[in-house]
Amino acid sequence: MKYNVNAVGREIPEYIEGFGELVPFKGVDAIKPEKKKAGAKLRMRVQQEKKIIETLEEAIKKSGLKDGMTISFHHHMRNGDAVVNMVLDTIAKMGIKDITLAPSSLGTCHEPVIGHIKSGVVTGIQSSGLRSPLGDEISKGILKKPVVIRSHGGRARAVEDGELHIDVTFLAAPSCDEMGNMNGRTGKSACGSLGYAKVDAQYADYVIAVTDNLVSFPNLPASIDQTMVDAVVVVESIGDPKKIVSGAVRETKNPRDLLIAKNAFDAMIHSGYFKDGFVYQTGAGGASLAVTKYLKEEMIKQGIKASLGIGGITGPLVDLHEQGLMDALFDTQSFDLDAARSIAVNPKHYEISASFYANPNTPGPAVNNLDFVMLGALEIDTDFNVNVMTKSNGVINEAVGGHQDTAVGAKMSVILAPLMRARIPIIVDKVTTVCTPGEAVDVICTDYGIVVNPRRQDLIDRFTKAGLNLKTIHEMKELAEKLTGKPEAIEFTDEIVGIVEYRDGSIIDVIKKIKE
Amino acid sequence: MKYNVNAVGREIPEYIEGFGELVPFKGVDAIKPEKKKAGAKLRMRVQQEKKIIETLEEAIKKSGLKDGMTISFHHHMRNGDAVVNMVLDTIAKMGIKDITLAPSSLGTCHEPVIGHIKSGVVTGIQSSGLRSPLGDEISKGILKKPVVIRSHGGRARAVEDGELHIDVTFLAAPSCDEMGNMNGRTGKSACGSLGYAKVDAQYADYVIAVTDNLVSFPNLPASIDQTMVDAVVVVESIGDPKKIVSGAVRETKNPRDLLIAKNAFDAMIHSGYFKDGFVYQTGAGGASLAVTKYLKEEMIKQGIKASLGIGGITGPLVDLHEQGLMDALFDTQSFDLDAARSIAVNPKHYEISASFYANPNTPGPAVNNLDFVMLGALEIDTDFNVNVMTKSNGVINEAVGGHQDTAVGAKMSVILAPLMRARIPIIVDKVTTVCTPGEAVDVICTDYGIVVNPRRQDLIDRFTKAGLNLKTIHEMKELAEKLTGKPEAIEFTDEIVGIVEYRDGSIIDVIKKIKE
Repeated sequence: MKYNVNAVGREIPEYIEGFGELVPFKGVDAIKPEKKKAGAKLRMRVQQEKKIIETLEEAIKKSGLKDGMTISFHHHMRNGDAVVNMVLDTIAKMGIKDITLAPSSLGTCHEPVIGHIKSGVVTGIQSSGLRSPLGDEISKGILKKPVVIRSHGGRARAVEDGELHIDVTFLAAPSCDEMGNMNGRTGKSACGSLGYAKVDAQYADYVIAVTDNLVSFPNLPASIDQTMVDAVVVVESIGDPKKIVSGAVRETKNPRDLLIAKNAFDAMIHSGYFKDGFVYQTGAGGASLAVTKYLKEEMIKQGIKASLGIGGITGPLVDLHEQGLMDALFDTQSFDLDAARSIAVNPKHYEISASFYANPNTPGPAVNNLDFVMLGALEIDTDFNVNVMTKSNGVINEAVGGHQDTAVGAKMSVILAPLMRARIPIIVDKVTTVCTPGEAVDVICTDYGIVVNPRRQDLIDRFTKAGLNLKTIHEMKELAEKLTGKPEAIEFTDEIVGIVEYRDGSIIDVIKKIKE
Repeated sequence: MKYNVNAVGREIPEYIEGFGELVPFKGVDAIKPEKKKAGAKLRMRVQQEKKIIETLEEAIKKSGLKDGMTISFHHHMRNGDAVVNMVLDTIAKMGIKDITLAPSSLGTCHEPVIGHIKSGVVTGIQSSGLRSPLGDEISKGILKKPVVIRSHGGRARAVEDGELHIDVTFLAAPSCDEMGNMNGRTGKSACGSLGYAKVDAQYADYVIAVTDNLVSFPNLPASIDQTMVDAVVVVESIGDPKKIVSGAVRETKNPRDLLIAKNAFDAMIHSGYFKDGFVYQTGAGGASLAVTKYLKEEMIKQGIKASLGIGGITGPLVDLHEQGLMDALFDTQSFDLDAARSIAVNPKHYEISASFYANPNTPGPAVNNLDFVMLGALEIDTDFNVNVMTKSNGVINEAVGGHQDTAVGAKMSVILAPLMRARIPIIVDKVTTVCTPGEAVDVICTDYGIVVNPRRQDLIDRFTKAGLNLKTIHEMKELAEKLTGKPEAIEFTDEIVGIVEYRDGSIIDVIKKIKE
């Protein structure tokens, strides 16, 4: 096998069976798009034709799904999703094989996929996330082709430029009418935004809505509308409501999280970007939520208002919006009950597609508007590269999500991470898997202080002037190793089980099979 | 020149210079699409790049517009539009030639286009409508290539399937932010829906927003959003507000219109389609508005509610919606001030694109949901073919609009027309120009009675049973000729100045140069 070394120093094979040629990652914003957008198959439906199809099997037959094709799903049902398993079971029963499963993400509820891999129904997976136990099994090499990991923006790009062609998409619809107009706002399986699904609905050759809540025509707003949907299948349940959206998030009392959050908050307010009209994204972890709490107090104190919150939306951002402190919310995915409620009632809580959110190949993805983004990490290395995909034992777990996209889009990307987890250091010489390149990472906030990427001398100057507790990345790594000892290297075989794409479609890293 | 006779008996040349091969019209729903959707050029914009460009000329330079390219505009500014003329003047000044002008429609305010045709700046026009004086001049043969006339749905189809490729679109934006998020809801040039513009924004290779109302980011809802817009140009005025939307419509007192309306109303309530959940579209003419008035009274009397009003939306439909008699409105174009006000405040007054409205090559254009549509006519022939494009002297005037699309989509299409206008009969042996095929026309209501297309024996039976005043098309024609005399035939040359496409892209008729 021939290799190329990419811009983050990883050896990338020139060619992989089941994938094709690999373009090595060349640095952020290095690859300019030259193609045109791909297009879904044109379809005509005469007036009398009904869209409601009695069974999933019948709808799959009508779609023309065949061996070797690619199917997709959205992950707005999160860990309560019943549609991926339901569809794969049906496909298996119908005797269709060699399917590439290309959902926006997969969770622990998708354990049955393992069986479909072993029986040859599924031979390829392309996803933003993979969790245990599916991730463990793939790390052991059960899948025929290597799994392809893409960020949310990278997936939207791949669908739009035709790299990921979806033959049939199955869209879990919390509310849907007989024409296929759907949204996630009402019904027992309400999930809020259908942001990921919007991309698939637009580019798939055949679109099947799967709903447990058929409502009267017209169902408005139509997050996905009747011009995209070919068939509507009504089922008993598309998921377990208790697992679709989490309940209201609670304030963290964890002192480590509060230390991390305080460091991030200090960095934000001294960055020069904390001013009227700023744009903010954060996650749903304890430290992230604590940052928002500190931020809210400071906004009130200084009389500063944000123009926009982006991303996976949580209750604390809804609170800022409803308090008049944040003018609007761009929501690709509603993370909790507060967000799912808000999107249905607040007109400026605005549903956006994954392409609008993060696709690099448009004249204006929302991530490019970010001033600040708070991000997590499983590992960070001394080149500031971040791993969010493989565990300390080298096994595939978690998800790339919008990490790559927001890190480069934001004026200041902040990684929130404890210095160690379960006596394993987070800052290391080389991360197991590079997901986000160090070039796009500006600030790291741990419970032991703040590290700024030397590329951002402007921030180092500001923070030094403000008297913040700065360390270099090497100081931080040594501190970690002093506390935990140096971790043992993981042993891998040469077999490639996963490919991590950068958002532009180039390859930032590969994941190898672990030695058992 | 070789000809083919199409399904409405018109001789269609096999090939026309400046257009290419012509597919003769084969009947409604006869041509199934086989292609994939076309795609706009992928574009990447790095974070720091500003979208606001100082001048229109600079934005045109950045767009890469060159001789021979196609530019587009929307016609939501109607007869108050200033953007078409402003852009063509700039292009002319820059020395660019041989441009195809492909707006969604053109009005009387676009007289200056004549000068740009004569100077060679504009050599092709593709539009739904053409009015005097531009229509008169084109009928005289001043344009290098024949003008291409498409319905609203046909244009959306042509853009989506790549038949009409737009290089640069210039979108008049009543409100717009620095990222290009725009809508038609606020500002001095507020026009309501931006339904036509939505298609162009999605498929053009370069999108320039032209606004006279730059608002703070993010401008929501974004009828057209930041992922589609490349440049924003701020100008003094995009149009004359007085001519953009008409004032509130007034009730007609014209007894002829009331007779036509009464016949249409009788036909509707005895059609079998007048029941809970019906879907309705009507125009802004006196007779159309009177139908809606009668309808409202009957709905209240019988306790019947409509699910949906579609189309160009007018005050009387907004009234039905706000009174709780019509659940929702699908709005491609807001016809008056009431509609423009309503779309900004009523969540179920829903903005839809021209493709959603009427594109035949999607699994669900809104026109396919229609029970009733009220349509106009300049001429109707004994095969029920309708002309809405050429005047009684053969000169191009008016617009095809959604006529072709709704006529075939609706369960019952109703043509409202007086038996004669200025002593010229409306019902004739052969219409000057076939725009909508008789196959799609169900009922004709004149001030002298009702004619039902013999294809619709079901309606004839129902109306006969209800005791309605039915005539055959030949009886109606003879009645007209008895009152007016037989009109003299118009004399044409052999030179083709216009091509009328059916919504599927086949050719339903050609328009010839008149003998002077």
